[in-house]
Amino acid sequence: MKILMLGAGVMGSSLCITAASQSNEADTNEVTLVGSPLDDAIIDSINSSRYHPTLDVDYPGGIIAIKNDECDAATLQSADVIIIGVSSAGINWVIEKIKAANASPKLFSLVTKGLIANPIPNHPPLTYAHTLPKALQFDANKLVGIGGPCIARELALGVPTRVIFGSHNIQSCDTLRDAFQTDTYRIKTTTDVVQLEACAALKNFLCIGVSAMLGSHLLADTYAKNPVAALFNQAVIELRLLSEWISGNDPQTKESQRDIIAFDLAGMGDLHVTVGGGRNSRLGTYLGQGHNLSTVLDNQMLDVTVEGVDTGRQIHSAVIAAFETEKLHAEEIPLTLAILECINTGGLFEFDFTLLPG
Amino acid sequence: MKILMLGAGVMGSSLCITAASQSNEADTNEVTLVGSPLDDAIIDSINSSRYHPTLDVDYPGGIIAIKNDECDAATLQSADVIIIGVSSAGINWVIEKIKAANASPKLFSLVTKGLIANPIPNHPPLTYAHTLPKALQFDANKLVGIGGPCIARELALGVPTRVIFGSHNIQSCDTLRDAFQTDTYRIKTTTDVVQLEACAALKNFLCIGVSAMLGSHLLADTYAKNPVAALFNQAVIELRLLSEWISGNDPQTKESQRDIIAFDLAGMGDLHVTVGGGRNSRLGTYLGQGHNLSTVLDNQMLDVTVEGVDTGRQIHSAVIAAFETEKLHAEEIPLTLAILECINTGGLFEFDFTLLPG
Repeated sequence: MKILMLGAGVMGSSLCITAASQSNEADTNEVTLVGSPLDDAIIDSINSSRYHPTLDVDYPGGIIAIKNDECDAATLQSADVIIIGVSSAGINWVIEKIKAANASPKLFSLVTKGLIANPIPNHPPLTYAHTLPKALQFDANKLVGIGGPCIARELALGVPTRVIFGSHNIQSCDTLRDAFQTDTYRIKTTTDVVQLEACAALKNFLCIGVSAMLGSHLLADTYAKNPVAALFNQAVIELRLLSEWISGNDPQTKESQRDIIAFDLAGMGDLHVTVGGGRNSRLGTYLGQGHNLSTVLDNQMLDVTVEGVDTGRQIHSAVIAAFETEKLHAEEIPLTLAILECINTGGLFEFDFTLLPG
Repeated sequence: MKILMLGAGVMGSSLCITAASQSNEADTNEVTLVGSPLDDAIIDSINSSRYHPTLDVDYPGGIIAIKNDECDAATLQSADVIIIGVSSAGINWVIEKIKAANASPKLFSLVTKGLIANPIPNHPPLTYAHTLPKALQFDANKLVGIGGPCIARELALGVPTRVIFGSHNIQSCDTLRDAFQTDTYRIKTTTDVVQLEACAALKNFLCIGVSAMLGSHLLADTYAKNPVAALFNQAVIELRLLSEWISGNDPQTKESQRDIIAFDLAGMGDLHVTVGGGRNSRLGTYLGQGHNLSTVLDNQMLDVTVEGVDTGRQIHSAVIAAFETEKLHAEEIPLTLAILECINTGGLFEFDFTLLPG
């Protein structure tokens, strides 16, 4: 398989290592890493010394690393799989580049996480599984989403990792799995790609509330594990309700394709890793220590993208509207509402445990 | 309510603090803590200085604390609720004491966790929800099980905690909840008490395998979070399969009473806390560092009761037998089988990630 990764961020770059190391009897992958306009220094480092500076690992010789300017239309057109390896901030660069080349690979995939407010007012937010096929005019069956607990550097180092691939078309999942699976990168599959993408984005949002309990320091000698576990549990349950609400509104997802994604790798598994570290967890911890959200974003985390905050802003009005239509019930998602309130006011995160369902 | 706690261990003693602090308009609880024959020093400390030495907290004046010898038949007979507050090692003391007094309270509850090999060969193990009503000849509807993430000392200090009560008879749950719930001790309820008890015991067992990933130190700068999250996720899924297998064999549990308990507080919530600390987690961490199980139990953890190991021994032959009858499927529970193998041989814990279902 000719695999083209657009963006040399840590997750995309790690996946290239996995794809390059993968070998089965029939095939070997040809892997090309394309830096975004912001990634020139990373590509230079790889080509001069086979060292990836943001991943902090040696980078295998078999991977072709090129800069944005060096990636022409022919390169894009020759790929079997194009993977979007940027954060949501880079998505427009990717779309314009693929469009300009008129590239039409067999499969598209993405590591980008995020939700987009629905242009139809009061409708559930959209995932990239909704918007990318439209933006790039390809069959939605070609899109494979990736979810599950995966810290990029651990993947790059070959630490055992298990993820979940999702596509409306299970054959697309299977094809991509065959290209990526190794003894240490294990892949489960699902047909509910919309729910998978929703979980992947929402877990960052819900992580903020769970991690606030890490910062609460209610005990002098340790953090308070009971409230962390209680809100971890509640976060997974709310992840289910929110992701099913988003998936349930998608006409492409048939009833028979629906799994309970939140109770698996893209939900509870990924939330487990996310609460354990990263930017959303850092923000939550600061909130738990009693700081205002706006203070943290203007000081300790200035210029840091906290994806969970963006996701909260994208879903807020649709969540409130869903109470009217009874697609969601306020009393079932108290943690979601507490985080939304904090993001909306920029103030303190306050959670009332008596609101948890009995 | 007159609440009698049998055993002055940390969990039972903490629950007494909660019950004593609880007050609603109608009632105040009268709480008596009865030390087991091994708890005399604890009771002395409480009565002389209102200090609980193993919990390391001040102990409220309103709780009556008496020694085993001071707890006569009349005391047991006058209780509205008797709670079994011992570990499984103390269960016979409790049974003999209640039997001798011929006590028949309105409700029984327990904090004891464990499974018992079924006397019928090749049948699923039994929970205390099966055995206690028979041993003490009371109506099984009177029994309320307690599950969910709860570190005793945090409960004693009033840290927000959320648990789940279970009973074949939901009114029994509600009655006990009314007696215990406070603003910081929040209680959910279920009718699937067998599954709840199964999860409460099995989470200790499965914790051993998850925690082995904590010890694996595959990365120099941190522990390996991807495999921890992958096996946490897998442990919850296997917890569901095992607890439904045990509950499904119980004629007292009607189909309509069954919840997916593993995907809630008694399963994923409690596993979250359990992996975070405690004896099962310690054992798992040692195993992950490459020690033999028998070496750890004979040295670092000599004379320490590791409940998950006992649970593994109780379920082993029944799990294997369930493959024959297709009540369980080996390929769905690779983590369970790896832990059972380690316990059975006393050797290394080895887990093959390629066995995880695709």
